Amino acid sequence: MTIKIGAVGLGRLGFQHASNLRYSIPNVELVALCDMNEEKLNKTAKDWAIPNAYTDFGAMIKNRELDAIAITSPSPLHAEQIAQALDNGLHVFCEKPLGTTVEECKIAEEAVAKHPDLVFMLGFMRRYDPSYAYARKMVFEGKIGKPILFRGYSQDPETAISGAIAYAGHSGGQFIDMAVHDIDLARWFMGSDPKTIFAIGGCYAHPEFAEFKDGDNVSALMHLQNGSMAFLFAGRTAPHGYNVETEIVGTKGTLRIASVPQKNMVEILDEHGVRKECSQDFIERFGDAYRNEMNEFIACVKEGRKPEVTVYDGTKCTEIAYKCKEAFENNELVRM
Amino acid sequence: MTIKIGAVGLGRLGFQHASNLRYSIPNVELVALCDMNEEKLNKTAKDWAIPNAYTDFGAMIKNRELDAIAITSPSPLHAEQIAQALDNGLHVFCEKPLGTTVEECKIAEEAVAKHPDLVFMLGFMRRYDPSYAYARKMVFEGKIGKPILFRGYSQDPETAISGAIAYAGHSGGQFIDMAVHDIDLARWFMGSDPKTIFAIGGCYAHPEFAEFKDGDNVSALMHLQNGSMAFLFAGRTAPHGYNVETEIVGTKGTLRIASVPQKNMVEILDEHGVRKECSQDFIERFGDAYRNEMNEFIACVKEGRKPEVTVYDGTKCTEIAYKCKEAFENNELVRM
Amino acid sequence: MTIKIGAVGLGRLGFQHASNLRYSIPNVELVALCDMNEEKLNKTAKDWAIPNAYTDFGAMIKNRELDAIAITSPSPLHAEQIAQALDNGLHVFCEKPLGTTVEECKIAEEAVAKHPDLVFMLGFMRRYDPSYAYARKMVFEGKIGKPILFRGYSQDPETAISGAIAYAGHSGGQFIDMAVHDIDLARWFMGSDPKTIFAIGGCYAHPEFAEFKDGDNVSALMHLQNGSMAFLFAGRTAPHGYNVETEIVGTKGTLRIASVPQKNMVEILDEHGVRKECSQDFIERFGDAYRNEMNEFIACVKEGRKPEVTVYDGTKCTEIAYKCKEAFENNELVRM
Amino acid sequence: MTIKIGAVGLGRLGFQHASNLRYSIPNVELVALCDMNEEKLNKTAKDWAIPNAYTDFGAMIKNRELDAIAITSPSPLHAEQIAQALDNGLHVFCEKPLGTTVEECKIAEEAVAKHPDLVFMLGFMRRYDPSYAYARKMVFEGKIGKPILFRGYSQDPETAISGAIAYAGHSGGQFIDMAVHDIDLARWFMGSDPKTIFAIGGCYAHPEFAEFKDGDNVSALMHLQNGSMAFLFAGRTAPHGYNVETEIVGTKGTLRIASVPQKNMVEILDEHGVRKECSQDFIERFGDAYRNEMNEFIACVKEGRKPEVTVYDGTKCTEIAYKCKEAFENNELVRM
Repeated sequence: MTIKIGAVGLGRLGFQHASNLRYSIPNVELVALCDMNEEKLNKTAKDWAIPNAYTDFGAMIKNRELDAIAITSPSPLHAEQIAQALDNGLHVFCEKPLGTTVEECKIAEEAVAKHPDLVFMLGFMRRYDPSYAYARKMVFEGKIGKPILFRGYSQDPETAISGAIAYAGHSGGQFIDMAVHDIDLARWFMGSDPKTIFAIGGCYAHPEFAEFKDGDNVSALMHLQNGSMAFLFAGRTAPHGYNVETEIVGTKGTLRIASVPQKNMVEILDEHGVRKECSQDFIERFGDAYRNEMNEFIACVKEGRKPEVTVYDGTKCTEIAYKCKEAFENNELVRM
Repeated sequence: MTIKIGAVGLGRLGFQHASNLRYSIPNVELVALCDMNEEKLNKTAKDWAIPNAYTDFGAMIKNRELDAIAITSPSPLHAEQIAQALDNGLHVFCEKPLGTTVEECKIAEEAVAKHPDLVFMLGFMRRYDPSYAYARKMVFEGKIGKPILFRGYSQDPETAISGAIAYAGHSGGQFIDMAVHDIDLARWFMGSDPKTIFAIGGCYAHPEFAEFKDGDNVSALMHLQNGSMAFLFAGRTAPHGYNVETEIVGTKGTLRIASVPQKNMVEILDEHGVRKECSQDFIERFGDAYRNEMNEFIACVKEGRKPEVTVYDGTKCTEIAYKCKEAFENNELVRM
Repeated sequence: MTIKIGAVGLGRLGFQHASNLRYSIPNVELVALCDMNEEKLNKTAKDWAIPNAYTDFGAMIKNRELDAIAITSPSPLHAEQIAQALDNGLHVFCEKPLGTTVEECKIAEEAVAKHPDLVFMLGFMRRYDPSYAYARKMVFEGKIGKPILFRGYSQDPETAISGAIAYAGHSGGQFIDMAVHDIDLARWFMGSDPKTIFAIGGCYAHPEFAEFKDGDNVSALMHLQNGSMAFLFAGRTAPHGYNVETEIVGTKGTLRIASVPQKNMVEILDEHGVRKECSQDFIERFGDAYRNEMNEFIACVKEGRKPEVTVYDGTKCTEIAYKCKEAFENNELVRM
Repeated sequence: MTIKIGAVGLGRLGFQHASNLRYSIPNVELVALCDMNEEKLNKTAKDWAIPNAYTDFGAMIKNRELDAIAITSPSPLHAEQIAQALDNGLHVFCEKPLGTTVEECKIAEEAVAKHPDLVFMLGFMRRYDPSYAYARKMVFEGKIGKPILFRGYSQDPETAISGAIAYAGHSGGQFIDMAVHDIDLARWFMGSDPKTIFAIGGCYAHPEFAEFKDGDNVSALMHLQNGSMAFLFAGRTAPHGYNVETEIVGTKGTLRIASVPQKNMVEILDEHGVRKECSQDFIERFGDAYRNEMNEFIACVKEGRKPEVTVYDGTKCTEIAYKCKEAFENNELVRM
């Protein structure tokens, strides 16, 4: 059985997902594309020989040939499109975030609950990165004893700052836009939700973020309900590149995933010392993870399984991110 | 245009290549399988829904549907199968080595020369590993100045020793079986062939290899025609895993590819210190490279291009490997 | 001019300081020792040919031959001994902490203020570690731009846990006993004091600490007055050894000091992967720093200079550590 | 008992040794200095308050106060001065090389043999570096099984090239001047001498060395008598700094000492990637080793012990270095 899928959104990551669906994922056939940008839409459909191209999402999901849909549209559209697609009987993969507000998340939650027979998967791709998956397995096999501290860094390169500033009014802020991945990882690795949150930060290089009550670098310290700790740091000014690193300190061992964001396995010895170049963006770093998660989604549809990442994970992470934002904005401790 | 391909040989690496052709390579359709093991052949054909299954190579290449063939059969069959396939008008991808003797290589060379319109590609996959490709580009852009020394290590894990001993009589020895990859890399990075070769080694852990005038660990020092140097080390007793590392020392910089054979990006801090686990075999280490080289082969067929790795590279590397073996066996300097 | 010095306290670190003064520090002569343990005192004095040995601190400081004194006695004695020594006209080096309470620190402060002609130095030895000194210089030369985040880890090995439990009632707790070094580093690198502090933690492996309202692993997040951030983590259960690592994230670069606690420059590739063994205690890790700080103290005495570490640094760090403890105990944000 | 010592030669390393003897080594008193440069001699004697200063070595060793002498004079003087000092009843520490020819080495050998009651120690300081000593102990405890391959790199920084060119006529060439340390390490780690040697190299950046039948980068492959292998590489053009690295591959493990020449424990993440700066010269890298070896010499004198490094090690390493030079010059295999 080959799953027939449509992809909505051909932005940077959307194009990558669609390309993976077209060329790298087994058991699936990409039969429809949807994007507002008609020129890009038509060119892509032609280049890849995709039979159906839509500028209207509502039209696409009425295509009876489709089994599933992959959503990488602008974030504020996610929840509504999830609901529409499910109501049309389609399995749904949706990029993070689930929604830009908790209310939107609830809409998606309800739609998912209404269709228990359909597969819904949220794109927390880090869980499908081979190194993260390996580390998670070690933690759950008890290799590091009892988890004590989770530390998650997400840093975008300074080279991407102009886009970030332009988008600052719509991003929801650092915690919702960037730290949400680390919030998901913290819950996934530590197996617990926060009970108390403190968050700080500021505009260290780019005062433009202050207008949106946001910072260019922020951090949060969380006490989780099982007593463990989580520290998050999210920044937009990394000179070295795209840096996502994670540490889990346990009573019997510590794991670090990507403690340096090495671009590849080349080490250079020159006048700058001994060095490795760094990953420059999320597609370079998480290319495998994006493929793996889509593979899992297709496999779930084929096998009638539910993926590990649920719609409730999406809502919970959004709620926590908003609590971090609240602590940051008010300079207060927030209890959940 | 979709290339229709047949794959011969479903051993460990052959199965991997076939699986990639079935599921991960765009623009290609795997339509035929060939293997002596009828049970494995039929099971694989059924699992993957491959319409044609052969135990006879001669029968497969007569299938008029085929455009190309991927050869991963036992090494002594390579040259003859290359010639047969080309003579039947098929493009050919062949796993290394080109042949187990220089004479076999010449048979393949002639067949390739006779069919200038067909694509032939030899599987020196390391060239298609992202880190090797990145390093090669740096060297050729002059980033490290003039190359001085090439150092290539190829170590198989001790855990694979029983298979290596069983196969020792047919492998051609350490230089032909293992160091041939480093010989290719040395020529590729340094842009020159050896003029003088010295080689030594011994049976440090497994006296069984002595029976075949071979060692379990061997090394060679080569003076290349452009004056640069190459040092090779090949071993079968690595306790830590599958270790392929390469260094190019230049007048303006040094590059090291995989200076440690890290399994993934997980770093562990525990009672053993601070550590990374290691790759355990060639498929784990070079999974991407195997996919990339096959992508390149298919792209060449589609676009009517010739790949960078030629049949002459195969012959030359085999010749050099035999000269190393000669130096090692006779304890003499060999001049080419 | 050779400075004549007496050393009080021959515990683990005291013995090390005394040994350095006897054998490794130029321009100084160790002429007196003081310890309550008469046997150890007399043996050491004899082995090293030290002419004066005292069990009574008051008697030692009356020795008119002395120019200076090095205090490594139990922490609760520090402040009083500092005052006595200064009042007797002696220059004073004192191991951290300055005192076990803020009140004790104030006693020391007053004594120092009363004797502006005498040198007083507090033993925040990390500042004299070559790597820390190198990093501090880079930060102050603007090499990493504007500092954003300080991260300081101090982990003692699990192998030392029984001593830590035995001493738990007198240590002042994790923040005063361990994190005080990181508090000093945070102030030193970031050039600012905290304005808001949140701290959490728990007993993850050793419930014994709960009795003293302490944890075996704790952390704190601080917002500093200049807007920068500091995250501290202090633990007693590290399986890999003695781990002190520090990171300073800036707008133009990030520095990490001892990001892994490598014991030496030996890398091991074996069945555990590729690894470095780790430092096991503070004397192994900071041996050079202990010598360097004592060199600086002697140089200050000789040259009539004041060292960079002042008595006020000692008080401030103690105050901050107590605020961390307060936040931790009450589960509240503390504002300074 | 305090050993009274005189130091001859106040060049870069000589000054360092003398300074260590004056300030950092216990149980010794530096009472005499000797150098041809009268100005430097007198200034140093005055600054350090050394009572005796000589421009004539013969006069210094007649000083009856002396117990021992440390020789860091120009290499061609070593053997003769060793003999003179021993004949005057003095214990002798001598920097490497023992002599610049095998004949000179024999003179030193005879003098040492004539005075079995006196301590003679040769300055192969790497053996006293903590990391090398640690690795050697592991090898001899069987931690890596049976040694298979020794790899030794010695690279001087390109920044020091003008001095190296100026000295090229007197250095004896790369093998005698630089690789001799690696020859000593190979014998020390592998416990065996070479039976066959091949050596190559060239002038890759600096044709000036050709005039002296030398290269700016050279290498040698040796088969040792116990069957193990040794590969040496010595270069003068390292852009990154002073790089001395060593690897011992064994049947049960591999050890690498200073696989990258990190300057300190600071890691930098900036626009060049993630990097460590490198050691820039031998005094920066081996400062501890120089102190430790002198400590050992003084301890041997005090305790009437003989040091591990013997005069015969010096002769043997010189012989091997000349055989490497012979192989390199003649492009022939050399058998010992």
